[in-house]
Amino acid sequence: MNKIMKKRSIKAGLPPGSLIYTGEKKSEAIQIKLFNYDVDRFEEKVIDLNDVSLLHPKESTVYWINVEGIHDVNTIEKLGGCFGIHPLVLEDILNTGQRPKIENYDGYTYIVVKMLFYDNKLSEFTTEQESFILGENYVISFSERKVEIYNTVREGIRQGVGRIRKMGTDYLIYNLLDVIVDNYFVVLEELSEKIEDTEDELVSNPSKDTLQVIHKLKKQMLYLHKSVWPLREVVSFLTRSETPLVKESVDIYIRDLYDHVIQVMDTTETLRDILSSMLDMYLSSVSNKMNEIMKVLTIISTVFIPLSFIVGLYGMNLSNMPEYNWPWMYPVVWVIMISIATSMLIFFKKKKWW
Amino acid sequence: MNKIMKKRSIKAGLPPGSLIYTGEKKSEAIQIKLFNYDVDRFEEKVIDLNDVSLLHPKESTVYWINVEGIHDVNTIEKLGGCFGIHPLVLEDILNTGQRPKIENYDGYTYIVVKMLFYDNKLSEFTTEQESFILGENYVISFSERKVEIYNTVREGIRQGVGRIRKMGTDYLIYNLLDVIVDNYFVVLEELSEKIEDTEDELVSNPSKDTLQVIHKLKKQMLYLHKSVWPLREVVSFLTRSETPLVKESVDIYIRDLYDHVIQVMDTTETLRDILSSMLDMYLSSVSNKMNEIMKVLTIISTVFIPLSFIVGLYGMNLSNMPEYNWPWMYPVVWVIMISIATSMLIFFKKKKWW
Amino acid sequence: MNKIMKKRSIKAGLPPGSLIYTGEKKSEAIQIKLFNYDVDRFEEKVIDLNDVSLLHPKESTVYWINVEGIHDVNTIEKLGGCFGIHPLVLEDILNTGQRPKIENYDGYTYIVVKMLFYDNKLSEFTTEQESFILGENYVISFSERKVEIYNTVREGIRQGVGRIRKMGTDYLIYNLLDVIVDNYFVVLEELSEKIEDTEDELVSNPSKDTLQVIHKLKKQMLYLHKSVWPLREVVSFLTRSETPLVKESVDIYIRDLYDHVIQVMDTTETLRDILSSMLDMYLSSVSNKMNEIMKVLTIISTVFIPLSFIVGLYGMNLSNMPEYNWPWMYPVVWVIMISIATSMLIFFKKKKWW
Amino acid sequence: MNKIMKKRSIKAGLPPGSLIYTGEKKSEAIQIKLFNYDVDRFEEKVIDLNDVSLLHPKESTVYWINVEGIHDVNTIEKLGGCFGIHPLVLEDILNTGQRPKIENYDGYTYIVVKMLFYDNKLSEFTTEQESFILGENYVISFSERKVEIYNTVREGIRQGVGRIRKMGTDYLIYNLLDVIVDNYFVVLEELSEKIEDTEDELVSNPSKDTLQVIHKLKKQMLYLHKSVWPLREVVSFLTRSETPLVKESVDIYIRDLYDHVIQVMDTTETLRDILSSMLDMYLSSVSNKMNEIMKVLTIISTVFIPLSFIVGLYGMNLSNMPEYNWPWMYPVVWVIMISIATSMLIFFKKKKWW
Amino acid sequence: MNKIMKKRSIKAGLPPGSLIYTGEKKSEAIQIKLFNYDVDRFEEKVIDLNDVSLLHPKESTVYWINVEGIHDVNTIEKLGGCFGIHPLVLEDILNTGQRPKIENYDGYTYIVVKMLFYDNKLSEFTTEQESFILGENYVISFSERKVEIYNTVREGIRQGVGRIRKMGTDYLIYNLLDVIVDNYFVVLEELSEKIEDTEDELVSNPSKDTLQVIHKLKKQMLYLHKSVWPLREVVSFLTRSETPLVKESVDIYIRDLYDHVIQVMDTTETLRDILSSMLDMYLSSVSNKMNEIMKVLTIISTVFIPLSFIVGLYGMNLSNMPEYNWPWMYPVVWVIMISIATSMLIFFKKKKWW
Repeated sequence: MNKIMKKRSIKAGLPPGSLIYTGEKKSEAIQIKLFNYDVDRFEEKVIDLNDVSLLHPKESTVYWINVEGIHDVNTIEKLGGCFGIHPLVLEDILNTGQRPKIENYDGYTYIVVKMLFYDNKLSEFTTEQESFILGENYVISFSERKVEIYNTVREGIRQGVGRIRKMGTDYLIYNLLDVIVDNYFVVLEELSEKIEDTEDELVSNPSKDTLQVIHKLKKQMLYLHKSVWPLREVVSFLTRSETPLVKESVDIYIRDLYDHVIQVMDTTETLRDILSSMLDMYLSSVSNKMNEIMKVLTIISTVFIPLSFIVGLYGMNLSNMPEYNWPWMYPVVWVIMISIATSMLIFFKKKKWW
Repeated sequence: MNKIMKKRSIKAGLPPGSLIYTGEKKSEAIQIKLFNYDVDRFEEKVIDLNDVSLLHPKESTVYWINVEGIHDVNTIEKLGGCFGIHPLVLEDILNTGQRPKIENYDGYTYIVVKMLFYDNKLSEFTTEQESFILGENYVISFSERKVEIYNTVREGIRQGVGRIRKMGTDYLIYNLLDVIVDNYFVVLEELSEKIEDTEDELVSNPSKDTLQVIHKLKKQMLYLHKSVWPLREVVSFLTRSETPLVKESVDIYIRDLYDHVIQVMDTTETLRDILSSMLDMYLSSVSNKMNEIMKVLTIISTVFIPLSFIVGLYGMNLSNMPEYNWPWMYPVVWVIMISIATSMLIFFKKKKWW
Repeated sequence: MNKIMKKRSIKAGLPPGSLIYTGEKKSEAIQIKLFNYDVDRFEEKVIDLNDVSLLHPKESTVYWINVEGIHDVNTIEKLGGCFGIHPLVLEDILNTGQRPKIENYDGYTYIVVKMLFYDNKLSEFTTEQESFILGENYVISFSERKVEIYNTVREGIRQGVGRIRKMGTDYLIYNLLDVIVDNYFVVLEELSEKIEDTEDELVSNPSKDTLQVIHKLKKQMLYLHKSVWPLREVVSFLTRSETPLVKESVDIYIRDLYDHVIQVMDTTETLRDILSSMLDMYLSSVSNKMNEIMKVLTIISTVFIPLSFIVGLYGMNLSNMPEYNWPWMYPVVWVIMISIATSMLIFFKKKKWW
Repeated sequence: MNKIMKKRSIKAGLPPGSLIYTGEKKSEAIQIKLFNYDVDRFEEKVIDLNDVSLLHPKESTVYWINVEGIHDVNTIEKLGGCFGIHPLVLEDILNTGQRPKIENYDGYTYIVVKMLFYDNKLSEFTTEQESFILGENYVISFSERKVEIYNTVREGIRQGVGRIRKMGTDYLIYNLLDVIVDNYFVVLEELSEKIEDTEDELVSNPSKDTLQVIHKLKKQMLYLHKSVWPLREVVSFLTRSETPLVKESVDIYIRDLYDHVIQVMDTTETLRDILSSMLDMYLSSVSNKMNEIMKVLTIISTVFIPLSFIVGLYGMNLSNMPEYNWPWMYPVVWVIMISIATSMLIFFKKKKWW
Repeated sequence: MNKIMKKRSIKAGLPPGSLIYTGEKKSEAIQIKLFNYDVDRFEEKVIDLNDVSLLHPKESTVYWINVEGIHDVNTIEKLGGCFGIHPLVLEDILNTGQRPKIENYDGYTYIVVKMLFYDNKLSEFTTEQESFILGENYVISFSERKVEIYNTVREGIRQGVGRIRKMGTDYLIYNLLDVIVDNYFVVLEELSEKIEDTEDELVSNPSKDTLQVIHKLKKQMLYLHKSVWPLREVVSFLTRSETPLVKESVDIYIRDLYDHVIQVMDTTETLRDILSSMLDMYLSSVSNKMNEIMKVLTIISTVFIPLSFIVGLYGMNLSNMPEYNWPWMYPVVWVIMISIATSMLIFFKKKKWW
């Protein structure tokens, strides 16, 4: 389940730049895959960690080093050393509670964003951290686990469809971010369907669980908001004017990506507003239903109480009660009781009490 | 009915620039109509898709290519090819879940806005996407279906009334946007009348349906807000200073249009605030009404309960109850009961409990 | 009564610049009065619409053309023609649902603001639209009906008190706006007194009507907010630096006017906050009162229910009930009942239930 | 008591610059005191209004003209004349409903702020208006009544402690504003203590009065907010860069004063948030308490109702009721009733209903 | 416990620059420790207050003067004198109710932040004030008491791990601020765990205490917000461009620190939103639970009331009641009663009332 906060306190008290992995413990090995391509050729191989030193990328081709799994601190450190990455950056890559951000360093740009995974069983999503190092002719991506949504990018490279092989690292990073943001729409659609279902439930039969579903959805929206809001700044930063690593020809794609992020934000806000309104609806529905019940029950009681009084009256054992001897008294009592009951019911009906 | 989100997930996993129509499936053919005019002459014809290549507009006259229906991807692609429109723009035209926006491209400006259609039966509006390509001497408009509100513009061109024939594509695009925004006012008036009706209902006879009407109106306002808010940016961008395709002489009209958009936004916000206040009203009204009922019913019960006790008292079968033999006991009991009841009622009245 | 929106839809479908009066229909004739003055002389006359052409103002004196009533489109059009006013401006003057704004045109500045009229009977205000054309040596004011609050300005001109005769059109426009804003304070005072009355009512005796009064006041505040907020921009624009028609010597007065507008806004916000707080108060008060009542009634019932059980017990007709023959049983029952009742009341009292 | 708005309407309809005192009527005479000092010498005297003309301050020393009481329009006008103060400024000084502001005029700066007086009996504060004219070598302060909190400044001047005698009018004005802002802290402390008391009351024993105290405190916070918010702008304006009358050496003090104002604002906002949260608490507490009561009472009724039915059953007078003749029926009825009652109580207990 | 406001009023009426300690009174002596280091050497000693004058730091090494305890005004004044610190700064150091801020003075920069201490017993944190004087080659830190979280910094200096001994005062101040901010995460984790516990409690068994816990947590969040919000400005100010005392090489660390502050702010806001949502949940849960109870109880009453009427009916003593003599009447009554009860229960069940 989502925790409100990722554990960070284990880092308190350590000097800045200490490398500690703060995510979930995992046992499988880290896999590092290299995609090396230009317009004409393409190479794909799994990298042995001892070969890491051989990685120093030559000028003319694009290198994509796709790291899946970051729970082995040593490997990350060695890789960081090869590319001359600042210890503070490595620290942030390993500390999975980062806020999406982008930072220029000497020779490379560091990007961190959130990836969403929707879990159909729990009807909620989990977030994982995705870091990128964007260099002149290399991109290193750090994922917390195997990332299937990259497959379209990988296939694009392998088969040379689209522009990807014709362009540089800036277009590659745009592609990776684009599939991540596209995935946000998938999650949003799942959530908005869940919301629409809950809305129907609200109208037809609000239950105690409905309330908890609404509360849970509201929290999901909070987490989503927290992931998406800073992403806007990240993408708007990623243009020619802010970083020299992005060429002008890619700006048009970044602008498109930015548009998608805005749409995600927009939809998130709309869903939050709808959820707020649904909570009001829920409260009103429940109280309406309750009121209906209490009203009917109370009307039944109220009609019978004067009748009970009358029958109690003629249950008294006092002497000298003249009615006891009137022969037509019993039918008269019935007439009185029926007329009291009906006039009360008519009165309540007129007042529109039921 | 309005969905919270337009389906987008079918696009996830495709490379950028893939043309997929995401709107409702339709069977009727796309109709493309050409309006070609200048001050002196005017020509109107339906375009055969094979003639599309003949469309390349000459300098001196204005071309309006009015595309109604965008569900045929091939046609749109062919048309886009003729005018050299970027694949990302074509992708956005076909993806009907766009947020209103305006973007400058090389040689043309791309504009996308939302058109509202009010459905009197459902008492709600639907939104459809309207895209424009504004070139030096041509405007291409892409609608999801036949758009009647353009008829005034078409007539204006045909009959040469107003300035439209004397001015360029910038004035044409202003005219098209103007009728779209004017239509927003029509929708707002329908909604505000619905709100005023509901308000009267609230005061006179709040029911369970009232709540749902309020909730539905609130959602409508959310959707409207979402359509109008970015429109402001679109219109404010559409001036001489931001795009060379708009001449200074049209700026005064754009400013007027901008004013209208602000008014729409303003009214939307006011209606939202009124709806929020109405929900509070509703909750109070319902609880007030319920309280009134319960109070009356409880007072009736409370008055009878002591009386029932008294008549029960003299229904006991104990021996040695002296009252049983007192001859005037029965009238005394009546007197006691009536005085208890009246004193309770007076007490409740004094306390203003009914 | 105030409508949420002024009717605008009758304009939908007309080409831009079509002159349509959208306000209330009126039958009385439009009155146009000319005030022509400088330091030394002063002239006041009603203008015949055929003389309108004679109006072309000479350089050295100030012309104030005070138009009361704008429901006659022809007259407005003719007047507009004389002074070379843009059709879009005339359209806005006639369309009484404008948002307050200020716009520079070639040779003149167009200003539109809202005038408030407080109706003591309905305890609400209505808004009317007031437009101004500020030229080099003329001011044209367009009111929807006779405006009494201008009388102080008129008297000032007639009697030459204050600086008005010594200064130009900029000081005149400041004077007209100043009396309009001063009138806002009058309306705000009425509303705030109404609010204070309602507050007292809330504490002493909250009723169903109180709720509706609060709701109505909240809506009034919304309308007021909508009129005042854009006014700030209008006034802040009206300084030397933004428009050449205002001389530096008048800036100090405009700043004072701006201050007043800020004060109006401030007070409006404070009143809105107080009204929100009052609604909470109302809900609490009503529920408190209801709780009090229900508590007392329920306590009465609860005390009598065990007693009724006891008297019912000895109303049974079973044989072999030994108590029936005990001679001191009747007083014992009384003692039991009284002690039960008193111990319950003491218990409730101790628990502070009443 | 605090009114929501200070009366202003008596000014409506008067030409700009009309001097009208809008505060409370007072009968005591205005007192004007002159403090004239430099490093070496010091002079203090009450000024005769006829001597006002003698006041024209010489270059080298600092003049503080301390006006206590502004209800005599003539005196203020005469004084204003002496120092060449603009009629609009004099109008603002007399109109006690001003918003805090600062304005540069030719040769002097006009400052108006709010002074708070906490009234322990009413547990609320009142605001009064304090105006300052800051000239090259004079400061005129206009108070609505005798101001004791200035005594520290007066003593400082008399005894020459601190820097006050060594510095100019800019330091004097800083000192005066500083004691005013320090006084805000005193008021805030009183209010926050009142809030903490009310918080304890909320937890221990929420009553009807608690609600009104919260509402009153919320209103106080609104007024305070209204006084403090614009004060920030006033102080931030009062630096070397905005007005030539403040020397660079005083900037450090102004910055300190600005800090204090920010702290006041901060605390005000925190208190407002706490009050909002307290209102929620109150509503919950009251409804919790009510629920507890109703639950207990209803449980009592519910337990007795089936018992009453049973005893009623054997009170019937039908023939052929076999139970009537069973000798052990009476104890059996008791056993039945006791077992019903205890099983109901156990059931309710298990469900945690009490 | 946390007070809403730190006492400040004891300072009212004193001239600016008066040194008064406003924190808690303490009896232990102030301890001042000197850390003097450069790359090669390191010295640590407790400073005698009479030696303070010997402290004047030489150019080439870094001096950290670590003052623990600020309740002795004389010592602070003497120390301030040595380093030429402005009286207003000393006043702020001693006045523990400061808002976090940073100010450049001649030759040094003054920083004040809040330090948080989480108290596990009370489940709340307390704040203490931490002031820093950052000079060219010295840092003076003023704490209210012994600060254990500095131990990592102290050890770093002693053992020369990390860069601390190789860098200047700017890196030292970064280190001190970093451990303070890291400590915020620890507090946030404690609070978010408390919140998650309370959330579980809400769902399983909402009690009266839950409400108070929520209210208390909300207040804690307010205080935290108040401490963190201005901290952002402090850190963003602390870069090369704003103060010459920070070298460019440290900017990268400051940016990292800034990131952490943003994360703290972010988490604080998320927690506040969750708490708001929890309050709504609580209210709904409580009212749901209450409704359930009342419904069951009322249904029991309602079923029995008609039955009680029937048995009362045949308890009447009227003559001529024919049913009294019908031999099969008693079983018939039972049949009637059972069928009434079951049909009512079936009806309620169908309506889903229980």
